Amino acid sequence: MGSGLLGTSIGLGLRARELDVVLSDPSPSALGVAVDIGAGRPLIPGDHLIPELVVVAAPPDVTAAVVAQALADYPDAVVVDIASVKGAILTELQHTGLDLSRYVGTHPMAGRERSGPVAARGELFTSMPWVLCPAESSSPSAVKTAHSLAIDLNAVVFRFTPEEHDAAVALVSHVPQVMASLVAARLQDAPQHALSLAGNGLRDVTRIAASDPALWVQILGANADKIVGILHGVREDLDRLIGTLTAPTARGARLDMAQLISEGNAGQARIPGKHGGPAQAYAWLTVLVDDKPGQIARVLTEIGEIGVNLEDMRLDHSAGREVGMLEISVLPNKAAGLVEELSLRGWKVLM
Amino acid sequence: MGSGLLGTSIGLGLRARELDVVLSDPSPSALGVAVDIGAGRPLIPGDHLIPELVVVAAPPDVTAAVVAQALADYPDAVVVDIASVKGAILTELQHTGLDLSRYVGTHPMAGRERSGPVAARGELFTSMPWVLCPAESSSPSAVKTAHSLAIDLNAVVFRFTPEEHDAAVALVSHVPQVMASLVAARLQDAPQHALSLAGNGLRDVTRIAASDPALWVQILGANADKIVGILHGVREDLDRLIGTLTAPTARGARLDMAQLISEGNAGQARIPGKHGGPAQAYAWLTVLVDDKPGQIARVLTEIGEIGVNLEDMRLDHSAGREVGMLEISVLPNKAAGLVEELSLRGWKVLM
Repeated sequence: MGSGLLGTSIGLGLRARELDVVLSDPSPSALGVAVDIGAGRPLIPGDHLIPELVVVAAPPDVTAAVVAQALADYPDAVVVDIASVKGAILTELQHTGLDLSRYVGTHPMAGRERSGPVAARGELFTSMPWVLCPAESSSPSAVKTAHSLAIDLNAVVFRFTPEEHDAAVALVSHVPQVMASLVAARLQDAPQHALSLAGNGLRDVTRIAASDPALWVQILGANADKIVGILHGVREDLDRLIGTLTAPTARGARLDMAQLISEGNAGQARIPGKHGGPAQAYAWLTVLVDDKPGQIARVLTEIGEIGVNLEDMRLDHSAGREVGMLEISVLPNKAAGLVEELSLRGWKVLM
Repeated sequence: MGSGLLGTSIGLGLRARELDVVLSDPSPSALGVAVDIGAGRPLIPGDHLIPELVVVAAPPDVTAAVVAQALADYPDAVVVDIASVKGAILTELQHTGLDLSRYVGTHPMAGRERSGPVAARGELFTSMPWVLCPAESSSPSAVKTAHSLAIDLNAVVFRFTPEEHDAAVALVSHVPQVMASLVAARLQDAPQHALSLAGNGLRDVTRIAASDPALWVQILGANADKIVGILHGVREDLDRLIGTLTAPTARGARLDMAQLISEGNAGQARIPGKHGGPAQAYAWLTVLVDDKPGQIARVLTEIGEIGVNLEDMRLDHSAGREVGMLEISVLPNKAAGLVEELSLRGWKVLM
């Protein structure tokens, strides 16, 4: 129920496993696109369906109402929602007085910069976290069905309480979104010449500021108390910094500034690596490449021949020039050998 | 003068053009490394040098003093500094009463996550902005020499007043650094299970929070008034958001939240593309790749064969799984054809 980016992606992923998928959406055009790209067959009013599982992929605001309707319409089905907030939806459902044993709240942590069924892909959830947040009322068999859904879509399953989930996403997703938007908002009236100095630092910090306002209004509203709790801490740090920078030569000012940056170092170091390994467990190398078709491929082909796997890579170039830096990260014990091998093959490479 | 990351990189770049480079540093070990990797020959006390150009690559705090000494010691040389703040250094120099016609403040916008001469590379400035900030006192021939330095190192030259420069870097570099540190600082005491949900959004926002506290104390202190001006705006927006989220169902609350996110959209859209072109002028595609040596190279080789050049790319995978998403951006008029060609070759690819 709901054929936006996530609902359509779930349909595509389940169709790839040859399961029967029936789709509905209040927007006929969204439904039409989802059906056309093979995410399932459309729900025909009057059809008597007995689904095993109903996935509610509606906007957060209406999710509880759609879940309640699905529990009533399909009395044998497990009903799962995938909204990015969990506590508010569960509370709203509990107020209906319905039996919630067949309901399991979940949150697949996947998305794209673009939205809508056109952007959908069956592999959207592959290797991404999918958090199951069963309530005390959820039956073990309903939880098992929700678990199977995530596994069928190749996600990595986590299990949190709704409370733990909302606190966690406030910290790792909602507050970063707010802060990225706050930084980007300052750029609205900036002179063009200032923006011409923008580098990867600014691009990284503001990338998620391109997010959809309509969706984020719902997320921020539904998880407001968890977000506010963290933002109070941010404001306290910000107030102290503004005070410090207003008298930057005062006694203790330098210590205050160093402390903010050091605390940022400490927090950043706790973020797990992309493969789930410990943070910063990889070595970064830089290879100078011509900015022409095939050059990056040549480097990576040779890295493949040398037999080293990439953890991550970034391309760094700017302002109409013809040379770029390919930054790659590898296991630390592979780094020195790789530099040597690539240098022998004529690449300019530095650790 | 100064053989850290930037000074040593300048030495390496100039040596590659076969210019005679003489290096000095208060740290004998930093100087030793810089000499060993070929960035120049060491300054021997008592040598009578008549350099054409002195580049002061000292920490911001001591830059003005080192520039003043260099102007006195080398009465025929142009003296350039490369510190990332310009107004405070110029003011300090003006207070010395020295003739500043031979001095030009500059700021190469290049750096790495790591510091010190070991991380140096002659290509560090290639295609990166290098801002010349001459004072009214700077002679045209001194400005020309500073310009030649940037061009010799393959940088892209900009010319700002010191005031314009400091306002611009406060906005595109210093405030983003502060905000990244503020977000990352909240992670210090987070439960480990919350961090296990970290995705690319959090990684992007906090990447620069890994920066060196010792350097940033100097930068924040020297550009404090420009930074504080912007942070007052951030605090105003943050206060309004905290008020809104404290009563998220109040009249007007949703509009307030939508406005913050929309203003972030508008600001983010103004950031120029990596090649200096208009923002968002590139189309993003996603290719599903096995997380094995050679797979990414294979895709990129085939993209090269198809004759399409990459603007940017990102690798997206997580949590110990064997499949990743390679996100690539290309000119929009190349996107549809590339999707078709790659699909014909058996790749799973989506726009």
